[in-house]
Amino acid sequence: MKKHVILFFSLIWLLLPVLAQGQTGKVFDELTLESSILGGERKYAIYLPPDYETSERSYPVLYLLHGAGDDQTGWVQFGEVLHITDKAIKEGTATPMIIVMPDADSGRRGYFNQLDGNWNYEDFFFEEFMPYIEGNYRIRAEKRYRAVAGLSMGGGGSLIYALRHPELFSSSAPLSAYVGPLSLDELKRRMDTEKFTDQEIQTYFENHNALSLIEQVSEQDKKAVRWYIDCGDDDFLYEGNSLVHIAMRKQEIPHEFRVRDGGHTWTYWRKSLPLVLTFVSQAFHQY
Amino acid sequence: MKKHVILFFSLIWLLLPVLAQGQTGKVFDELTLESSILGGERKYAIYLPPDYETSERSYPVLYLLHGAGDDQTGWVQFGEVLHITDKAIKEGTATPMIIVMPDADSGRRGYFNQLDGNWNYEDFFFEEFMPYIEGNYRIRAEKRYRAVAGLSMGGGGSLIYALRHPELFSSSAPLSAYVGPLSLDELKRRMDTEKFTDQEIQTYFENHNALSLIEQVSEQDKKAVRWYIDCGDDDFLYEGNSLVHIAMRKQEIPHEFRVRDGGHTWTYWRKSLPLVLTFVSQAFHQY
Amino acid sequence: MKKHVILFFSLIWLLLPVLAQGQTGKVFDELTLESSILGGERKYAIYLPPDYETSERSYPVLYLLHGAGDDQTGWVQFGEVLHITDKAIKEGTATPMIIVMPDADSGRRGYFNQLDGNWNYEDFFFEEFMPYIEGNYRIRAEKRYRAVAGLSMGGGGSLIYALRHPELFSSSAPLSAYVGPLSLDELKRRMDTEKFTDQEIQTYFENHNALSLIEQVSEQDKKAVRWYIDCGDDDFLYEGNSLVHIAMRKQEIPHEFRVRDGGHTWTYWRKSLPLVLTFVSQAFHQY
Amino acid sequence: MKKHVILFFSLIWLLLPVLAQGQTGKVFDELTLESSILGGERKYAIYLPPDYETSERSYPVLYLLHGAGDDQTGWVQFGEVLHITDKAIKEGTATPMIIVMPDADSGRRGYFNQLDGNWNYEDFFFEEFMPYIEGNYRIRAEKRYRAVAGLSMGGGGSLIYALRHPELFSSSAPLSAYVGPLSLDELKRRMDTEKFTDQEIQTYFENHNALSLIEQVSEQDKKAVRWYIDCGDDDFLYEGNSLVHIAMRKQEIPHEFRVRDGGHTWTYWRKSLPLVLTFVSQAFHQY
Repeated sequence: MKKHVILFFSLIWLLLPVLAQGQTGKVFDELTLESSILGGERKYAIYLPPDYETSERSYPVLYLLHGAGDDQTGWVQFGEVLHITDKAIKEGTATPMIIVMPDADSGRRGYFNQLDGNWNYEDFFFEEFMPYIEGNYRIRAEKRYRAVAGLSMGGGGSLIYALRHPELFSSSAPLSAYVGPLSLDELKRRMDTEKFTDQEIQTYFENHNALSLIEQVSEQDKKAVRWYIDCGDDDFLYEGNSLVHIAMRKQEIPHEFRVRDGGHTWTYWRKSLPLVLTFVSQAFHQY
Repeated sequence: MKKHVILFFSLIWLLLPVLAQGQTGKVFDELTLESSILGGERKYAIYLPPDYETSERSYPVLYLLHGAGDDQTGWVQFGEVLHITDKAIKEGTATPMIIVMPDADSGRRGYFNQLDGNWNYEDFFFEEFMPYIEGNYRIRAEKRYRAVAGLSMGGGGSLIYALRHPELFSSSAPLSAYVGPLSLDELKRRMDTEKFTDQEIQTYFENHNALSLIEQVSEQDKKAVRWYIDCGDDDFLYEGNSLVHIAMRKQEIPHEFRVRDGGHTWTYWRKSLPLVLTFVSQAFHQY
Repeated sequence: MKKHVILFFSLIWLLLPVLAQGQTGKVFDELTLESSILGGERKYAIYLPPDYETSERSYPVLYLLHGAGDDQTGWVQFGEVLHITDKAIKEGTATPMIIVMPDADSGRRGYFNQLDGNWNYEDFFFEEFMPYIEGNYRIRAEKRYRAVAGLSMGGGGSLIYALRHPELFSSSAPLSAYVGPLSLDELKRRMDTEKFTDQEIQTYFENHNALSLIEQVSEQDKKAVRWYIDCGDDDFLYEGNSLVHIAMRKQEIPHEFRVRDGGHTWTYWRKSLPLVLTFVSQAFHQY
Repeated sequence: MKKHVILFFSLIWLLLPVLAQGQTGKVFDELTLESSILGGERKYAIYLPPDYETSERSYPVLYLLHGAGDDQTGWVQFGEVLHITDKAIKEGTATPMIIVMPDADSGRRGYFNQLDGNWNYEDFFFEEFMPYIEGNYRIRAEKRYRAVAGLSMGGGGSLIYALRHPELFSSSAPLSAYVGPLSLDELKRRMDTEKFTDQEIQTYFENHNALSLIEQVSEQDKKAVRWYIDCGDDDFLYEGNSLVHIAMRKQEIPHEFRVRDGGHTWTYWRKSLPLVLTFVSQAFHQY
């Protein structure tokens, strides 16, 4: 009889892919690629939609950035990206998409090139990571089908990346974003100012805070990116987000802005994620 | 005979649920009172909760202020105060309350005393109107059971009234509020500056813009009023409301702040009203 | 015991108004007024909203016109105006309003002045009926709070009335409308042409068919009225309604146009009525 | 041992509902076939219903045509054909069917043979594409089980294809269709008239605009195709669609016609698609 039980379980095994087929997407959260810019291996997580393995179609892509103190597993473990995205796709409030979650090594401070040249993450992201991802997964590698979102430090990433590269993203959704230093002094307090000239610091400031970048947006780029900006009324980052809203209104940059009840918490962001998925899907869908 | 009386009351008892089922509140929108401060008749509208006529209890009161260009009928006709409040009471998201909607004669600019002394509406409101209302309807005339809310110019009214009279209101809910002139210059552009001294204008400014009043809030008054502040992301009054949020955060004045999708429209305010009713009921209910 | 039963029913009787209070609106369908223009009594029906008797407020008004072969009771008996309007008000998809249904004596052909001068219904409507209604019920007698709708011949009435009197109606909702003769020949076939000059007939034609009137709309009146036009795909009046849609698009007169599944039937119009109530309420509500 | 085999199959049986539960259809959007008529490879996308791989049955087929400026991926990415069809099949509002989406290379102007003979797409469609598809997938290759639908330029395709080949399609659903030039002049403005004789252009016109083709429909073909025609009231193609409705009514060609709220947008077409699937299923189902 034992033999038959084994036979039984073998057959069941054959059926499992059919069983699972279409039911849920898949998440891998310990993938790696080599980076020569950053030197060594970089990690990333990825969400593949439910029909990724059975269809042969290509998909839009959302880059979803974690916050400081976290890594590429944050949106997977705390953010429930699998369950929330599956649900949104199933209910038709989001289109099937690939979601890519890179690790920004937050101990070394995130998504941008550092002034000292030892951490050129922004170069890595655009020159190595994005091409690698879009070459190795069935992604529609055009601006229209590419979005970026993130929370806190990753909200800053999505804000600054889309302001500096409006030719690459159709939408950006910064959540509870750290919008960059609100003044040059704030930046100076955070860095070893002895190592750099005032001019270097000034230039760095202008390129790495949202308020300066918003002021510099050219007339033809004002509608280049669709924005969804969202920050809880109890969040400690309330001021930067409110000022970004005011600055974008004054610059006549169309954007959605929301303040809901809540603080700088995953409870808040898990409520934001479905809204982000719907928002970026609107660009992927056209109207 | 006693038996029949009992029978009678038993039957009535059976009818009571039917009786209660379809009950609605009542609205009167052309009521008046005499004002000696403003000289002549002033209009107001009032909402009385479904059981006002059958109960003998007293109720909490919400003063609900209209915007510029409107009158005491605005919240009735455009704001659907009857339907929305009945529904909220029926579903238990608001406690039965009386809602009072005064006419601020917006042609003469609203809820405050004018510098020229010809329109002392704030005096009228606190010295004549409130006492008249709370003396002529079954209202629990205590701070705990008194709230103020309003939209646009009336949002400004509820903001400034509660900042200047924290001893009178347990909650205030300014919606899409005009928070007052954002600078002294803005005020000067709006008035006939030849008629007044710089000192008079300066003093008026400090007492009639929310940002100055927030700065002046004393330590013991910081938690005197519960605040619900709400302004659409497409509203032209976005800046003042965002700055009030920032100022209250910096002053550590607890408050709820919301930015939802929408502009300076009744569509927005009809969605705000149920939230306001729930919010003020929390103070009326205690916790 | 009999005595007590009587007592019981008397008491119940006293409770009935309370019982009914707020539950439903009221319809009266055999009311009359004197007309000197038409000579004699004219009938009308009226719907009063649920809180009409308990509130003291004034209401917006919808004139709702019946079709040929019908009278003022059509919308009451076949159109279920009471049930449908009560439901819409209760669910908040329509604002409380008064609905007035005049009798157009369809044997004598309806809502317009006749060329022979023996039936000046349009004069009656605007000079006698409207003033009488708005003077005898608590109606907000302003354009913003006045709408007209109707079906078939009454759809023609609401179309032509609002085209000829854009200063009087904020919205118009012609359903399955007879839009007037589509050509001068069609008009001539319908009348005793020997009695009138060609010029008289020509002028009458231009003033009593929607296509001519749409062509004559002045630039400043193009947005004077909000239009909701609706005609089933199986309706015999498909052509006129389709041509009105085309003509309004070419003239850039904003309008809603719907073609749903169905013919020239009350089944169709009972589905249209809630849409009409919501549409006219939007004007009464502002945005 | 037999006993255990029975046990095994019993257990499988218990698993079947679970198995079926999450099943979805499959989409491939970069498939190709060789065309000698058009010269070279042509692309297409295909939707296969959830049970395609597990059943051995044959299916009805819907040819679903994209609009100008789009390609075979349009209905996949923007139209959500996978999600919407899966849902309709699951809820029983559509029967399982195969949906085929060819690329019409809209840069060269679509679904018809060109007068210059360099782009004989209609020949390709009927002589190469349809036979290829119906030979390589399990399709019931009979008129009764074949439908065509499409949007804009592809709405024109489905309109003209079914008018010219009523022996091939049981239903046709043109959405927001470009119905062809409304006049000979309109056609001439669009082409290089020097290259062709007036007679050639006249003949082309008569065969490639819906209004002429509707006039030519023979008595016995009037009920040969079931029609579902649908165009938003804000669509710029309102006139052609309204005129097709009028022309079909005058010719007594039975058809469903709908005008819903909306413009020439994917938001509109995503709402139309479920209606189309239900409509073509009715023909596949018989009554």
